[in-house]
Amino acid sequence: MIYDNISINNEGALTFANQDVIGLAKKYGTPLYLLDENKIRENCRKYVDAMKANFGDNYAVLYASKANSFKKIYNIVESEGMCADVVSVGEIYTALKAGFSLSKAYFHSNNKTDFDVEFAIENGVGHFVVDNREELEVINKFAAQKGIKQKILLRLTPGIDTHTYEAVNTGKVDSKFGTAIETGQAEEIVKYTLGFENIDLCGFHCHIGSMVFDSDTFIRGAEIMIEFMSLMKQKFGFITRELNLGGGYGVRYVESDPTIDIGANISQVANFIKDLCAKYELNVPMILMEPGRSIVADAGMTLYTVGTVKRITGYKNYVSVDGGMSDNPRYALYESEYTLFNASKINNAATLKCDVVGRCCESGDIIQPNVLLPETERGDILAVCTTGAYNFSMAMNYNRIARPPVVILKDGDSYVAVRRETLEDIIRNDI
Amino acid sequence: MIYDNISINNEGALTFANQDVIGLAKKYGTPLYLLDENKIRENCRKYVDAMKANFGDNYAVLYASKANSFKKIYNIVESEGMCADVVSVGEIYTALKAGFSLSKAYFHSNNKTDFDVEFAIENGVGHFVVDNREELEVINKFAAQKGIKQKILLRLTPGIDTHTYEAVNTGKVDSKFGTAIETGQAEEIVKYTLGFENIDLCGFHCHIGSMVFDSDTFIRGAEIMIEFMSLMKQKFGFITRELNLGGGYGVRYVESDPTIDIGANISQVANFIKDLCAKYELNVPMILMEPGRSIVADAGMTLYTVGTVKRITGYKNYVSVDGGMSDNPRYALYESEYTLFNASKINNAATLKCDVVGRCCESGDIIQPNVLLPETERGDILAVCTTGAYNFSMAMNYNRIARPPVVILKDGDSYVAVRRETLEDIIRNDI
Repeated sequence: MIYDNISINNEGALTFANQDVIGLAKKYGTPLYLLDENKIRENCRKYVDAMKANFGDNYAVLYASKANSFKKIYNIVESEGMCADVVSVGEIYTALKAGFSLSKAYFHSNNKTDFDVEFAIENGVGHFVVDNREELEVINKFAAQKGIKQKILLRLTPGIDTHTYEAVNTGKVDSKFGTAIETGQAEEIVKYTLGFENIDLCGFHCHIGSMVFDSDTFIRGAEIMIEFMSLMKQKFGFITRELNLGGGYGVRYVESDPTIDIGANISQVANFIKDLCAKYELNVPMILMEPGRSIVADAGMTLYTVGTVKRITGYKNYVSVDGGMSDNPRYALYESEYTLFNASKINNAATLKCDVVGRCCESGDIIQPNVLLPETERGDILAVCTTGAYNFSMAMNYNRIARPPVVILKDGDSYVAVRRETLEDIIRNDI
Repeated sequence: MIYDNISINNEGALTFANQDVIGLAKKYGTPLYLLDENKIRENCRKYVDAMKANFGDNYAVLYASKANSFKKIYNIVESEGMCADVVSVGEIYTALKAGFSLSKAYFHSNNKTDFDVEFAIENGVGHFVVDNREELEVINKFAAQKGIKQKILLRLTPGIDTHTYEAVNTGKVDSKFGTAIETGQAEEIVKYTLGFENIDLCGFHCHIGSMVFDSDTFIRGAEIMIEFMSLMKQKFGFITRELNLGGGYGVRYVESDPTIDIGANISQVANFIKDLCAKYELNVPMILMEPGRSIVADAGMTLYTVGTVKRITGYKNYVSVDGGMSDNPRYALYESEYTLFNASKINNAATLKCDVVGRCCESGDIIQPNVLLPETERGDILAVCTTGAYNFSMAMNYNRIARPPVVILKDGDSYVAVRRETLEDIIRNDI
């Protein structure tokens, strides 16, 4: 199986986190998001342990909560020693109501409104990751009103073009995010920032892209950022206390995706950082990373019930399920790959080549094309693996379809972390 | 201006439905969906009047409510003499709670669960548009339990490949929807359907695709369907009482899109249908159409507030707004085109070439690339035109961003049809 938390038990049933998925489908209904809490914790520890081993206490691992944000997740990552990357007042509010300590939150977003800034400052968000000049002015204003010096990082673009998909490629010069180093504009914004009385510039952030499978990208990013730190020390006497390298490592969606040793890769990057800081005679700043996908993706599985199997003579076969782009728009958006199983026929040979499609009235509502399944029929339970990231967080009510619940599996038990939407929820704001 | 409901008034302000959009942004906040009720009604009448003129009382125009579904819209279209195309229990429930008469609803969807079928029958949904064999069996079961004969249409695919975008192209043989005529499977499913005691087969449905700008597509569709009707009469003595040609005509998103005379086109199609039915010695069945986009798209406008204008020396300019793919994922999904205005600088020359992007933490969060705007700054109100279809209905809480309200403009007044989501709404189902 693609992950060690997916297997077939002695009774021949497909299990996820050692629990029979058909039993879970019966208990909670479908469509259903499952999350394996122990896998989430294991993923957190890969980052935390490696960062600690390499940087002592001078590190922070931020859970990029846009990958999957709901109250309970903040408790889980906090108990694993993680901080959080939040991108909206909605995520801040969620963390707050979960009891997460907001001093450990870093507030991202390329576009923070006055309301957002005031809300974050009033609620004691630890750091802003500042995207642009306008934001600096607003932060300074509200920080002054509150009589504090607000800690910030400046988001910079190191100008690295990764080979990942365009839509998640955020570190190149031409980006809606941050300020480019190459154009000289990063230097200008540092100078500008240092002039604000109520802003405490702690350091810099960059984000090179998602789905990184080697150390090379982080090393190239770190190199440019450390050179920039050195330049800022020379030019302005500015000492960088925090360097946030953004992102995390890639995850496996299909068997052909590489596996990656996160600990070994972090050590490689850490050694590079230490050597380069020594070369530039800089103290190693606090190093931050922001894994999101690699914390939750492989901890997730979505269960669906098959509604119809359509065999178009001479053309194609379609297996339709009771969810779709409404709970997982990633194929529609990015043609993302997934691994699928028919849990109800898990021991049968996979002989049915088909497109697995959703129930939305839209041809583009595809979960995954060209899948090989056993002969499948209405009522079968399909499992889509690696759906822990950017599924629930991107779910919508297209076609007024209710969003599925999030059920967390832990040590043989299960509990609801997000309730299934009801028909009443669908019309709640309609007048 | 691209539509007659958008103009600049004597005070030099951008108006929509004769109301100053900056005033509306101040009153309701941004992001904000606006809908021009009179334009919706005008669009309904184009279809209803043309259908009536050509078919007498033997027609139905169904509002394809997936384009924009909320309670109030069902009242508006019903009062214009329209029926509704609904695609989920969520849409059925919305229509029901609006007081819409469900006997005028046609229930679509390629994948109806047992719960869906039972719910629809219990609530008296007029017709099912049946997609597949499994569905027939379930309908027959619940109709028998209730002791009724459930009216249905069978969804067929005439095998027409329109030139519209793949994801909205639904009439070709290889489709997740319906049953193909070309393969002989449509004939088989008619025979199969006629064997069910509690099912009343009224006729057939096809849907060739969205964004159709001429009569040719409907004519080709009608031709294949009428030939099929004739064949069914010969083979099974089956008399088709209803023929649903699906879809509606295209709408203009940008100035270069064609305009279309809906009335003239419907007359062309109607003449063709009457002639061909005469040739085959068939009574002209009740003719149905299902416009959605062309009822609401140009009745919509979205207002945003600019947060930052980023000029990357030697590269590109970015204007970021306080919404994005969370309220309009259509560029991310389909690279859809839109027409934009800076309402705050409406009388200034458009000299700023920029990408207008959203606030989501994702590079693909683009409202529209390569837009020409006047010099723009934080606080400006941007208007995106033609957002009445597939914007609110596809909105999501990605990044835990709250969805905007829907405000309806009518005769100089405005009223909230869907409330703005609150932070409490965002976490409502989190435990």
